[in-house]
Amino acid sequence: MFVENIHLTGDDSAVEILDQTLLPGEKRLIRCTALEDMYEAIASLRVRGAPAIGIFAGYALYVLARHIRAADGEGFLAVLREHAACLEASRPTAVNLRHGLRRMLATAEQNISLSRDALLSRLRQEAVAIQEEDAAMNLEISRLGLRLLKPGDGILTHCNAGPLATSRYGTALGPILLGQEQGYGFHVYADETRPLLQGARLTAYELREAGVDVTLICDSMAASVMSQGRIQAVLVGCDRIAANGDTANKIGTCGAAVLAKHYGIPFYVLGPSTTVDMSTATGKDIVIEERDGREIAERYFVRPQAPAGVKTYNPAFDVTPAELITAIITERGVFRYPYGDAFERTFL
Amino acid sequence: MFVENIHLTGDDSAVEILDQTLLPGEKRLIRCTALEDMYEAIASLRVRGAPAIGIFAGYALYVLARHIRAADGEGFLAVLREHAACLEASRPTAVNLRHGLRRMLATAEQNISLSRDALLSRLRQEAVAIQEEDAAMNLEISRLGLRLLKPGDGILTHCNAGPLATSRYGTALGPILLGQEQGYGFHVYADETRPLLQGARLTAYELREAGVDVTLICDSMAASVMSQGRIQAVLVGCDRIAANGDTANKIGTCGAAVLAKHYGIPFYVLGPSTTVDMSTATGKDIVIEERDGREIAERYFVRPQAPAGVKTYNPAFDVTPAELITAIITERGVFRYPYGDAFERTFL
Repeated sequence: MFVENIHLTGDDSAVEILDQTLLPGEKRLIRCTALEDMYEAIASLRVRGAPAIGIFAGYALYVLARHIRAADGEGFLAVLREHAACLEASRPTAVNLRHGLRRMLATAEQNISLSRDALLSRLRQEAVAIQEEDAAMNLEISRLGLRLLKPGDGILTHCNAGPLATSRYGTALGPILLGQEQGYGFHVYADETRPLLQGARLTAYELREAGVDVTLICDSMAASVMSQGRIQAVLVGCDRIAANGDTANKIGTCGAAVLAKHYGIPFYVLGPSTTVDMSTATGKDIVIEERDGREIAERYFVRPQAPAGVKTYNPAFDVTPAELITAIITERGVFRYPYGDAFERTFL
Repeated sequence: MFVENIHLTGDDSAVEILDQTLLPGEKRLIRCTALEDMYEAIASLRVRGAPAIGIFAGYALYVLARHIRAADGEGFLAVLREHAACLEASRPTAVNLRHGLRRMLATAEQNISLSRDALLSRLRQEAVAIQEEDAAMNLEISRLGLRLLKPGDGILTHCNAGPLATSRYGTALGPILLGQEQGYGFHVYADETRPLLQGARLTAYELREAGVDVTLICDSMAASVMSQGRIQAVLVGCDRIAANGDTANKIGTCGAAVLAKHYGIPFYVLGPSTTVDMSTATGKDIVIEERDGREIAERYFVRPQAPAGVKTYNPAFDVTPAELITAIITERGVFRYPYGDAFERTFL
């Protein structure tokens, strides 16, 4: 099942991705060659999931770099920085996109005195490394997360932080998929995750493919299944973790955390250490992307299911305060609130 | 705006309703003449909202009574009871349906010795009385509820308990509509209410028609708007209130109540006193209707938005424990938790 969803075409002329907006009905590969295609692929969520966007950004900048015709190194870097700035603007909340782009820019800067071919080769290596490191981090996250779970546990998930959103096992779905291989027999309840239905379309799809017992529910049913004792843990991914542990993730995450606290259920955030952004002090400093209201009123529907012209509010993310999170699991360890100086010691 | 959505046709041969499943895109009146039509109209939510179902049941039983051909009074009552039992089975959770049907049966039993015409006339009066009393109760509920709100308040609603779901002002939307007439300038956030989108399709529609400032959000965004200080009160309707105050209402209500408690926002349940069911001790005794999972995975969508054959769980209601409810507002007063013996004194 672990075919990488993001990869270079054979001639390195494009990044090829599985268009996630069409799943689970259709599996269509699309090729992004130009900057506009790449921007659109991120903004329209054809590629989505914070780590996946970071991986995509690495390959994208490499492909774009191959097309730059500049008189000298400074000219090359100037264009590359412009491309990176454009891609970074496609989605403001997740930190992995920025992280991937800056890593590629730094690689270019450090190797700018090399020949063109050697420079491009280094950029390609760096992009591949971003993806491979993500896969390795996810495996470790999955191992650490699985230790927090018991065979037969009922698990609630929100949005999608599985292989499609990352690489290999995924983050929030990692312990579930690893546990499935080891016969844990989890019972997973997947929030559908309105408005864009990543839980229904992607999480339910990935878990079914892996043979996991998964039940699809609406977001509003989470309290009901929790109150019935069906949930022993909540697992979610993350788009940015502030220095104090406040975590931005898909809209609805904070509500699930409040419910978990009310029902005494542990609430776990899983993500690579690259999601921790020590330059963001608290959740208040995280820019929350607001998206087109038609995603609520029209998208996916046969016809608009709200009165024409109705006012909408469509934040793509929310911030879960650190005190509602039982533990943050990264490949560098399990961090339980309150963190003391563990974040500083680990991530600074 | 207060055309009754449920009424008899001119010749009393059918109950005519606005098909709520087609709103807001299409306003289509449908006529229910036979028992099968009436059952289907309730089960398919063409007529919905606990009080509205009760009103519909009254008219339905009157129309059906007109068609009964029986040798004597006992024969007439036997058939009428069969019809009532069938309609009662159409939806198990709301108490108003049962209440309306039993009231009509009691009227028939008390007047069975009258002439056929006189008996039918009494049944007609009773059905009209159910509707008129509902309208009067709703006006009083609206007045009492409005006293709990301040001009400019931000209000969160879930599902639809407006004119379409009841009669006239509605219950949960009553204070908002009454306040609108008095210049309160509320800012209402309407949960879309998955899976059947009653908030998007009906609440947003009714409030817009009345000129209220309404913003449509997904259910998962409630925590976000609460955390931003945009909400000063949550108003919801109810399908059944147990003797201890536990309240069954649309799935997602309990979650909204947990969030409101977490953010220190008052959570109000509004409904006619007929929704209080003193024969149901606690919420544990309320049967929660489970509906077809295709409502989650397929309904309203251009194509299925979940993998084929995915397991679903689709409870139509949940139970909000009394301790999460700031006050229950009926036409007989405002009841604040803990109730002591106020429920017994008022409703027994």
